[in-house]
Amino acid sequence: MKHLIKAQQFTPEILQQLFSLADSYQEQPRKALQDKVVATLFYQPSSRTRLSFESAVHRLGGNVISTVNAREFSSVSKGETLEDTLQVISAYADAIVVRHDEEDVLEEATRYVSVPVINAGDGADQHPTQALLDAYTIQKEFGRLNNLHVAFVGDLYYGRTVRSLSYLLTKYPNNRFSLVSPEDLSMKEDILSYFEKKGVSFETRTFEEVLDADIIYMTRAQFINESESGWARVPLGYDFSLTPDILDRIPSSTRVLHPLPHNEEINLPKDIETTDPRIAYFRQVKNGLFARMAVLDYLINK
Amino acid sequence: MKHLIKAQQFTPEILQQLFSLADSYQEQPRKALQDKVVATLFYQPSSRTRLSFESAVHRLGGNVISTVNAREFSSVSKGETLEDTLQVISAYADAIVVRHDEEDVLEEATRYVSVPVINAGDGADQHPTQALLDAYTIQKEFGRLNNLHVAFVGDLYYGRTVRSLSYLLTKYPNNRFSLVSPEDLSMKEDILSYFEKKGVSFETRTFEEVLDADIIYMTRAQFINESESGWARVPLGYDFSLTPDILDRIPSSTRVLHPLPHNEEINLPKDIETTDPRIAYFRQVKNGLFARMAVLDYLINK
Amino acid sequence: MKHLIKAQQFTPEILQQLFSLADSYQEQPRKALQDKVVATLFYQPSSRTRLSFESAVHRLGGNVISTVNAREFSSVSKGETLEDTLQVISAYADAIVVRHDEEDVLEEATRYVSVPVINAGDGADQHPTQALLDAYTIQKEFGRLNNLHVAFVGDLYYGRTVRSLSYLLTKYPNNRFSLVSPEDLSMKEDILSYFEKKGVSFETRTFEEVLDADIIYMTRAQFINESESGWARVPLGYDFSLTPDILDRIPSSTRVLHPLPHNEEINLPKDIETTDPRIAYFRQVKNGLFARMAVLDYLINK
Repeated sequence: MKHLIKAQQFTPEILQQLFSLADSYQEQPRKALQDKVVATLFYQPSSRTRLSFESAVHRLGGNVISTVNAREFSSVSKGETLEDTLQVISAYADAIVVRHDEEDVLEEATRYVSVPVINAGDGADQHPTQALLDAYTIQKEFGRLNNLHVAFVGDLYYGRTVRSLSYLLTKYPNNRFSLVSPEDLSMKEDILSYFEKKGVSFETRTFEEVLDADIIYMTRAQFINESESGWARVPLGYDFSLTPDILDRIPSSTRVLHPLPHNEEINLPKDIETTDPRIAYFRQVKNGLFARMAVLDYLINK
Repeated sequence: MKHLIKAQQFTPEILQQLFSLADSYQEQPRKALQDKVVATLFYQPSSRTRLSFESAVHRLGGNVISTVNAREFSSVSKGETLEDTLQVISAYADAIVVRHDEEDVLEEATRYVSVPVINAGDGADQHPTQALLDAYTIQKEFGRLNNLHVAFVGDLYYGRTVRSLSYLLTKYPNNRFSLVSPEDLSMKEDILSYFEKKGVSFETRTFEEVLDADIIYMTRAQFINESESGWARVPLGYDFSLTPDILDRIPSSTRVLHPLPHNEEINLPKDIETTDPRIAYFRQVKNGLFARMAVLDYLINK
Repeated sequence: MKHLIKAQQFTPEILQQLFSLADSYQEQPRKALQDKVVATLFYQPSSRTRLSFESAVHRLGGNVISTVNAREFSSVSKGETLEDTLQVISAYADAIVVRHDEEDVLEEATRYVSVPVINAGDGADQHPTQALLDAYTIQKEFGRLNNLHVAFVGDLYYGRTVRSLSYLLTKYPNNRFSLVSPEDLSMKEDILSYFEKKGVSFETRTFEEVLDADIIYMTRAQFINESESGWARVPLGYDFSLTPDILDRIPSSTRVLHPLPHNEEINLPKDIETTDPRIAYFRQVKNGLFARMAVLDYLINK
């Protein structure tokens, strides 16, 4: 693994190494990126992901050069290919974190790039460090990635995080999935076929039926770019919302994850959100920092 | 004081501690923020304030993660509350500097945030580190914060710096105020009532009458968002401008302050602006750096 | 040399010192900017140049404060002069790197600025560190800056890099120039007069006639702001393009330079671009990093 482009690159062995690295920073800070420079190159805004990566670089003692206007490189007036832009930036930085708005462009564009490139999300497709931090959170909360009942709740059609996590968890034995979504936002056929091919158990259920899952992975309604009417978003509704009532019926051993940001599908008072141990998504954010530190360290120093 | 939200939080005791800290960096650099990460989160542009805070972090050996697009977090497509955004960023940073475009939102939004939050200006209301650097400048120039004649000149209605400094200086004995402004831009009633309640002496005067004040605090005409006609700005005119003629009649012990940027209300040749010891506003800028270092050090390391 | 505003400031003696500094970082990293803060102030976007400078600061152990919204300082609502903005930023930083969209404003505006200011490009006029990195690349590739046959190819009318490099190379003996461009994009009269005054040999040629030059300096078609029709760009066409066919006929000792980004005027497969030793423009990018490190070190620490 020279570049990190797709969640499919994570084997159980690599995940184990990354988890060990991520754990290690929490025991003992380490300046693994001392004197290194990491570039963050964002072709579309995502301050949350960018700040997480940039904090990760600093926590490892490294330096950041950053642009949120990366579109400028390939704009009509400059007209540079992504391939060339990455090669130029590789003269300035020891690794490049790229957020792109087009799917499937990074694999080709990184062929001649001499420094590691990390995909920080490309269009609606891949966001491998999100999948990594989800897996790392499950590992920390349950001590295992196998033998889990995972309920995905919400928009399973457009949400890329549930897709990536599905692929990743099928690499471990005895996991089973419950799919809870509005009918027109159900999980795409390619994932379901993949489950079947791998012999993984999955069922379509109601939220009420999955409250005893090990993991309740909530998602928000995505905005969809509808060509005629612009961006639209339909709230998921009460049947896919976590309220205090619902929370009361969830076992103490269950963990609620969410890729954040959340909207009305999490409908809890702030003090419950902040203190209830079943609510794991703010710990998930913190784990994201350590997971990204691990990826940077692994790719730059291996 | 966990967060710094309002200038009213500054007691004379806290100010004394902050001034001592600010002085100390000028005698001996200190890496008080070594291995710390500070986030700057700007919901509206203010490069001057942001660069000042970010330089302060670096001068103390710390690291910065930064966004000038913070509006994105709460934009319609993401829809996150300020409270949640701050909680997420607190996973990445040891302190958060926020510039917001709405008044009175930070106190509520910071209740559950575990790291210090510093208000770097919210709408037309508070800008507590500006008040701090004004007070610190007066302390350095006069060796005291009491027994001063302060003339506020210009737009006293919209200018938030004169409001904050008024509150702050009434905590010290024997200060008196002269108010010089166009009639429709005079100091708001709430401050005048406050002066009266505290038994503080104040008078409405012309610029000509206050040239012997200890402090002449100049302000620029603010842009006002007039709902029908957009943003408008009326120059304050000659009666509220500092010209070489006027400067000739100001005693050598008087100090001219200004929150900057200035427009035509400072009408002096650059070489006079740069070398005349009565012109204190570029020293005031430098003091702002040390004052912000002090606030960061105080809140993060206390 | 307090500020670096124009390529004309580079004497052969200063260039020699800067080249020595640039060489030295490649032998032995040096924290020449430890505890220093450098501000990058961009009034127009140029991520490539900004990231190069910011990486240079970090490679020398320094810190960066940065704005790509510098226009905000002088915007109608703030109305500050460039002179004042630079004076304010000088309170926060040990040097200021400025990219401006207007020609000839920096010399005047830096008169009272106490820290070094470096011009990172102003309008269509000066970009002195680009000239420096071109010269440094030639020095590294040929071991000399004299006795060279330089062919400039493409848009010689609008391209500022060929202008700056022309002035710079005429300071060294026995250089001669071949000018290859569409008729309406030929080198401006002022440069030709300068060549004549200095007794420098130059000729207008076709691309075919200059393939044996020591240096083939390619340029792209610039976008021109045409007042009626907006921005327009006319591709230079096959006669000014480097294709595999053309490359086959170029001697092994020739070097191809380009200020980048390139468009269709470089028409080579990526693997040739990346591996052919005659293609020097990606080394040129890397040299830019070292050249900018040298300028920062020289101006801040001299």
